[in-house]
Amino acid sequence: MKLATLKEGGRDGTLVVVSRDLTRCVKAPRIAATLRAALDDWRRKSGELSLVAELLEKGIDSINDAPVQPFDPAACMAPLPRAAQWIDGSAYLNHVELVRKARKAEMPPEFYSDPLMYQGGSDAMIGPRDDVEAVDEAHGIDFEAEVAVIVDDVPMGTDPAAARGHIQLVVLVNDVSLRNLIPAELAKGFGFFQSKPSSSFSPVAVTLDELGPAWDGGKLHLPLVAELNGKPFGRPNAGTDMNFDFGQLVAHAARTRPLTAGTIVGSGTVSNKDPAAGSCCLAEVRMIETIAEGKPRTPFMRFGDRIRIEMFDAAGRSVFGAIDQKIVKYAGRGK
Amino acid sequence: MKLATLKEGGRDGTLVVVSRDLTRCVKAPRIAATLRAALDDWRRKSGELSLVAELLEKGIDSINDAPVQPFDPAACMAPLPRAAQWIDGSAYLNHVELVRKARKAEMPPEFYSDPLMYQGGSDAMIGPRDDVEAVDEAHGIDFEAEVAVIVDDVPMGTDPAAARGHIQLVVLVNDVSLRNLIPAELAKGFGFFQSKPSSSFSPVAVTLDELGPAWDGGKLHLPLVAELNGKPFGRPNAGTDMNFDFGQLVAHAARTRPLTAGTIVGSGTVSNKDPAAGSCCLAEVRMIETIAEGKPRTPFMRFGDRIRIEMFDAAGRSVFGAIDQKIVKYAGRGK
Repeated sequence: MKLATLKEGGRDGTLVVVSRDLTRCVKAPRIAATLRAALDDWRRKSGELSLVAELLEKGIDSINDAPVQPFDPAACMAPLPRAAQWIDGSAYLNHVELVRKARKAEMPPEFYSDPLMYQGGSDAMIGPRDDVEAVDEAHGIDFEAEVAVIVDDVPMGTDPAAARGHIQLVVLVNDVSLRNLIPAELAKGFGFFQSKPSSSFSPVAVTLDELGPAWDGGKLHLPLVAELNGKPFGRPNAGTDMNFDFGQLVAHAARTRPLTAGTIVGSGTVSNKDPAAGSCCLAEVRMIETIAEGKPRTPFMRFGDRIRIEMFDAAGRSVFGAIDQKIVKYAGRGK
Repeated sequence: MKLATLKEGGRDGTLVVVSRDLTRCVKAPRIAATLRAALDDWRRKSGELSLVAELLEKGIDSINDAPVQPFDPAACMAPLPRAAQWIDGSAYLNHVELVRKARKAEMPPEFYSDPLMYQGGSDAMIGPRDDVEAVDEAHGIDFEAEVAVIVDDVPMGTDPAAARGHIQLVVLVNDVSLRNLIPAELAKGFGFFQSKPSSSFSPVAVTLDELGPAWDGGKLHLPLVAELNGKPFGRPNAGTDMNFDFGQLVAHAARTRPLTAGTIVGSGTVSNKDPAAGSCCLAEVRMIETIAEGKPRTPFMRFGDRIRIEMFDAAGRSVFGAIDQKIVKYAGRGK
């Protein structure tokens, strides 16, 4: 089953069930008005929604007295515009090694057994085709292409094996980072804040059964394709070189507190050791350049730059639809 | 106007308007079922709710065909059980100086101009009389008594003066901290995570007009009273030695992203330079002991310990009701 949230209704948008080929959709207000509401009662609602999805594959809208609607990713908000939590791990240690070298920070040995994780803001998630507004190019605007999972209620103290059973949906993420704000912010000791503005999400969230053998219970074994300004940038496999699987990440997050249904847990920037796979953020490329040439050559993003993030199944079909967005200068004034 | 959230209805509870003396309340489902819903449309809903509050002071339930209900803080969830965000500043630098000394960390000079702030989890806030479940006493369980504000929608880039105008409600907080997890977690560089489990909130959230002259636009000038196991522990004035006011904290949070209505911004542990005021957390007392006696004498919290946090107006009336809760061993098993 594939689910999306249209820019209609209230702040949490309007839930639609989307066809496997991402061309058609059906609203299911009788079942759940929003994805948030569906996740609040997932065991029951997911069964009901999957029946709608089954009939949608046959071209039937089983809910509304209306023809099936075309699906437009540009009409989508993030699947969870206001999520319970946004927690981002950093499970691809190849990326962490490179980024820390770029920051001239050491890689402590415990990083190989104790996952890195930060708490992000989850109140203003950005839609897949919406512009990313930034205040200043000098902040060092970067994208980070990631995979993330959405969980149901996870009790405190859940272990990694049990945590896998709480994973209900998978999405793609662009975890926008303001690289030049990071060193000073991390030096303060309280972690990221201004350096990690709102993240963007793929048009659809998909259930695990849609992923077939690509989902092994804790990792998603497909290349994550990032294109910058229409040119190939990276396509590392999300199932390769992932040092902590999603079960381990969710369990780490739930060690001292419960996680409420609708919590999103991210993988961190996908990164493979094989240089031929390319990268899923600019910082990594800049580090590789620094090692090879003494300094970075690739600039961070400029206003007007576009980033596209997508994942295709073995048959070449888009699984989640594409995040495809432009970086623009923030025009508003605080009032 | 005073507002609370009863443990009825769904995950976001049921909104009630509470009388000024905290003895009676009225549900207002016709206006807003939850505080979250009221904040989503605050300009309109707050006016309608304040009329209900006015009549409630006269003993009249203007909404339901029923007598006014008694108000029981033990029947309350946190005012926002699932908040848009929980962002905690650290605005009382006296506390930061002492805690950092305890961690053997230096106090950088920029801390006096650039607020410390971390992103907390906001999906599972704890009610004012609910037990705080912790996994292990060895984690170094501590309370932190704080004041926090709830804002409406704050655009990116809002300046401190304008940010003051977005503050709509004030609450008290117990920002539970697991002190012994902090050093290793901060050493990883990504900030607090497991060391900052769910926070607890006062029974009621109050509008600024309820605070009278004690609210100066950015600070709340009343003592915050903390009692540990029924004995006075601290009563520092929240308006004294606050290095950054709430306008500055909200503006800092909104520098690179918008804040959605229902975002909660905390002050950090209230702390006065005057030692006679006592402290609002155990870590601070332990540091004072370390300076005087070479090592801390006061232990962190044990299972069964109680913490009470309350604030009284100039006439001695409780403003927010009391956070009064016990620390208990987490009995559940992750499933």
